[in-house]
Amino acid sequence: MQQIIILRMGHRQFRDNRITTHVGLVGRAFGAKGMILADISDASVKDSINEINQNWGGNFFIEMNVQHLKFLKDWINKGNLVVHLTMYGENLSKNLINEIKKKEGDVLVVVGSQKVPKTLYDLAHYNISISNQPHSEISALTIFLDRYFEGKQLLKKFKGAKFEIIPSKKKKIVRSLK
Amino acid sequence: MQQIIILRMGHRQFRDNRITTHVGLVGRAFGAKGMILADISDASVKDSINEINQNWGGNFFIEMNVQHLKFLKDWINKGNLVVHLTMYGENLSKNLINEIKKKEGDVLVVVGSQKVPKTLYDLAHYNISISNQPHSEISALTIFLDRYFEGKQLLKKFKGAKFEIIPSKKKKIVRSLK
Repeated sequence: MQQIIILRMGHRQFRDNRITTHVGLVGRAFGAKGMILADISDASVKDSINEINQNWGGNFFIEMNVQHLKFLKDWINKGNLVVHLTMYGENLSKNLINEIKKKEGDVLVVVGSQKVPKTLYDLAHYNISISNQPHSEISALTIFLDRYFEGKQLLKKFKGAKFEIIPSKKKKIVRSLK
Repeated sequence: MQQIIILRMGHRQFRDNRITTHVGLVGRAFGAKGMILADISDASVKDSINEINQNWGGNFFIEMNVQHLKFLKDWINKGNLVVHLTMYGENLSKNLINEIKKKEGDVLVVVGSQKVPKTLYDLAHYNISISNQPHSEISALTIFLDRYFEGKQLLKKFKGAKFEIIPSKKKKIVRSLK
């Protein structure tokens, strides 16, 4: 089965650590396998995501300090796909999602901040926009994964969780599983 | 027509300013009228959002330093709705969205960080979860607005923009409008 991995570009230490953590948490909750942080490392991001894994289950991975250009070229050489989410790209559509799903290989979803190297636009098989307005890489990733998994990611269960939430109209109900 | 305003709770200065800015930008891009920042003020958030308004159009407003409890009580007394997005709430569904759309009054969508006062759960007409996994208030808001506007927000146009993007498979194409 086609798997989805996230490549986070352009993370600026301190300024972006919460944003990158949220990118990872959305990736995990919405069905991606892991996240790669390009070119730098940030322990606060890794710690936050590992804590969530421990409490809420699953084995979403995080890899850091990966040299992005080398990684992208290897990824493509192995026959995998690169989908770059950018406000300048062609608009996401159901046809595009179906086309991606039909391809061989896994999908690398690349999200960046405002400054992303030009080479990325050339290397990517798809440059896709989630509206042509500026908003948030977290939001763009959210919509892409939502359309890819057709909303079913919202009911995803995670193995090995310590806690589970029982949905409630007025209360916080957390059940211990271990 | 029913309008949507965002109330952002629990913003911690410095740590959260990028997250709160993204909450605002998603609100703007996805069809909300404005954002209220509860209890504190943060010039960096306001500056970022105003800059986006100037370049990309629209009149998304931002109000800061609003005492949340007083604001919520006034809002409700005027016959408006409060929808609190929380991982503990009842699951979002098409029925819930339709129920909200049928109600009189405007909709305040409340998003917080992990620590939100208990009173909010009681005051809110709806406590709604976007999956029962921890992820991001940006992502939760994204899905709520997406379902509310049925995906049509992705094609929204903004009046008074200086720039417009022409969607492209490989290039950044920005057209000047002024």
